[in-house]
Amino acid sequence: MTTDPKEVLRIHSQTFRSFGGHTLASFEGSPSPLAFAKLVAENRPALFRNSNVEDWPAMESFGNRSQLVDLIGSDRNVKVAVTPNGLADAVIDGTFVLPHEESLSINEFFDRLDAEDPSNPQAVHYIQSQNNNMRGDGDFAKLFEQVPEHIDFATEALGAMPDAVNFWCGSRHAVTSFHKDHYENIYIVITGSKTFTLIPPSESWALEERTFPTSKYTPTETRSWTQEVVYMDPKTYDTTTDASQSHPRMMTRWCSLDPTRDEDLETFTDRIGFTAYKSPFLTVTLERGDMLYLPALWAHKVEQGSGTIAVNYWYDFSFGGSLYLLHRMLRGLAADAGYMERDEDIDGDDDDDDCEEEDVDVDEETLLVQAGYTNHTIFRG
Amino acid sequence: MTTDPKEVLRIHSQTFRSFGGHTLASFEGSPSPLAFAKLVAENRPALFRNSNVEDWPAMESFGNRSQLVDLIGSDRNVKVAVTPNGLADAVIDGTFVLPHEESLSINEFFDRLDAEDPSNPQAVHYIQSQNNNMRGDGDFAKLFEQVPEHIDFATEALGAMPDAVNFWCGSRHAVTSFHKDHYENIYIVITGSKTFTLIPPSESWALEERTFPTSKYTPTETRSWTQEVVYMDPKTYDTTTDASQSHPRMMTRWCSLDPTRDEDLETFTDRIGFTAYKSPFLTVTLERGDMLYLPALWAHKVEQGSGTIAVNYWYDFSFGGSLYLLHRMLRGLAADAGYMERDEDIDGDDDDDDCEEEDVDVDEETLLVQAGYTNHTIFRG
Repeated sequence: MTTDPKEVLRIHSQTFRSFGGHTLASFEGSPSPLAFAKLVAENRPALFRNSNVEDWPAMESFGNRSQLVDLIGSDRNVKVAVTPNGLADAVIDGTFVLPHEESLSINEFFDRLDAEDPSNPQAVHYIQSQNNNMRGDGDFAKLFEQVPEHIDFATEALGAMPDAVNFWCGSRHAVTSFHKDHYENIYIVITGSKTFTLIPPSESWALEERTFPTSKYTPTETRSWTQEVVYMDPKTYDTTTDASQSHPRMMTRWCSLDPTRDEDLETFTDRIGFTAYKSPFLTVTLERGDMLYLPALWAHKVEQGSGTIAVNYWYDFSFGGSLYLLHRMLRGLAADAGYMERDEDIDGDDDDDDCEEEDVDVDEETLLVQAGYTNHTIFRG
Repeated sequence: MTTDPKEVLRIHSQTFRSFGGHTLASFEGSPSPLAFAKLVAENRPALFRNSNVEDWPAMESFGNRSQLVDLIGSDRNVKVAVTPNGLADAVIDGTFVLPHEESLSINEFFDRLDAEDPSNPQAVHYIQSQNNNMRGDGDFAKLFEQVPEHIDFATEALGAMPDAVNFWCGSRHAVTSFHKDHYENIYIVITGSKTFTLIPPSESWALEERTFPTSKYTPTETRSWTQEVVYMDPKTYDTTTDASQSHPRMMTRWCSLDPTRDEDLETFTDRIGFTAYKSPFLTVTLERGDMLYLPALWAHKVEQGSGTIAVNYWYDFSFGGSLYLLHRMLRGLAADAGYMERDEDIDGDDDDDDCEEEDVDVDEETLLVQAGYTNHTIFRG
């Protein structure tokens, strides 16, 4: 007997919603470690308002530009993503396009931000390095004293310190397209506002995840933009735009549907079986001092108000529970349904030992796909 | 495109095991509420040794028969399950057979227990009423002061008091066949020993769950046994062996495979994809003072040493996380694969509104099936 994967997925999404999974919890103040552990166990997003964030030194110092510059150091260069349209890391016309990266002093960064034309920015600047940039020798390590070392209720609940702490700052034109992370994420807005559009693991399989050839925005001498092909060393995962090194093209796995766009909405609602809703996703806007628990594996798109500064803490995700098992099963079914490209390691098809010659090619390809994927899921917020 | 449900289920079971889900955690002493919450979140069974059980008054009073009789009251009759073979609530030759029930004084119960012939018991006695029998006006309410009102770490972790507390006592010939409960279960052995054979929700779909016509053991006047058909009132769910009331036969949903039996082992291991193992399940024996966390939805078979007295606490199961969603999906796939009878409410097939005449029959049948099922999952340990 066989199974219709589309039907199984649709019923699953409906069941998930009928059990109340598609909801945002809301707390006044911080949760207890146990209450937070329950949110993690249920993989349920939550907003914490009026917690102790108001007491963080950052609430004053990050809001004062000269104080912020003094803390970072006016001689310290920081990595800034620059794009013509605010879309750093997004699929555009079948290509995954990385941002141009510049190393700027924090004063230069703010000057550039101030110079962005609100109606036609031409160059959109965003500090989004998300490589644990507030700790160790990160660009913003000197700001780490302005925030807690960790979020106490999360550390106690999860039994470990955060894997990464990141500083985010940028233009209101910057948008992060739908993607998911294998991290439990605590996101705090210090100044400005951030809007998250959330799609749960029970539905994110509908976002048409595929592997895309990768390019990178590059400014031209005439103040316009081009895209350059990005290659990747399959051994070191180092990337380059230099074709002469004869590395294969970098491939990146990413969501290609954005149901907040009219043209993608119906495909999405058809797949999850919710045609009655205009906006069948959760949206939450964080204002100054708000804290969001963004659970692992929830797909999210992020937009922001102008002058937004935020900090996030990434905690290790536990692969031991039912969530990851369910997630893998859904992805296998979604691949069967033609809704996404099959994960290489899910269905065991690549365990084929009796064609060794082919394995060499396949492995190389797999390595690249996985490398690109890993690159963009580890430390991506 | 279609999906092979057998393949999906096999891969799932293998993934579950490769992620370490098929393991028993072991603690010295009691866990903290957070540690217990993590076990619940991961649906992982755990054995707690040398916890504070030794301090429970029951450890002395339940081990002393005269003290136990005094506490219960020699004039108080209690409900005892009696069977010819120790199989209360089991599928035998295509029929689900309930035990004969007698109301005996606790002295009579012990006399009967002592009289059981070890090699050929003929009548096996077991106190297994599991209807919250230690609280309220239960048969063993007078024993409740001998044990804690609740298990503190579990109550704190789960945020609620137990739904039921039960007293168990019986013959070493008594066996509880494979089944699962929608409860988080804390099981404590006071005297004797209990052996649990455990099969996780990621594999229990392989146990060939079906709906069986129900009968009841009945002793004859010549000291042998017969079975009587059991009928059920579809409105009140009351059962009767009186055919003249013209109620339909009671139907009970139960596991029909027992992979600990040689004849069922291969079917089970084929389905879950583990042919290399002789005993592909977890087995744990609790001795005096040991405490087991038996997570919701794990199928379990229970055997015991002679003179075993145990207590269990049932806590509400949270349907909000990924486990129940995964469980439903697995059951739907297992029904597609022909491994179990389809749950009426899983695949939406019974939402068929355009055949009203048939609906009357179907509803009545469904009610009975569900009633029988409910009857045997609520308060079954």
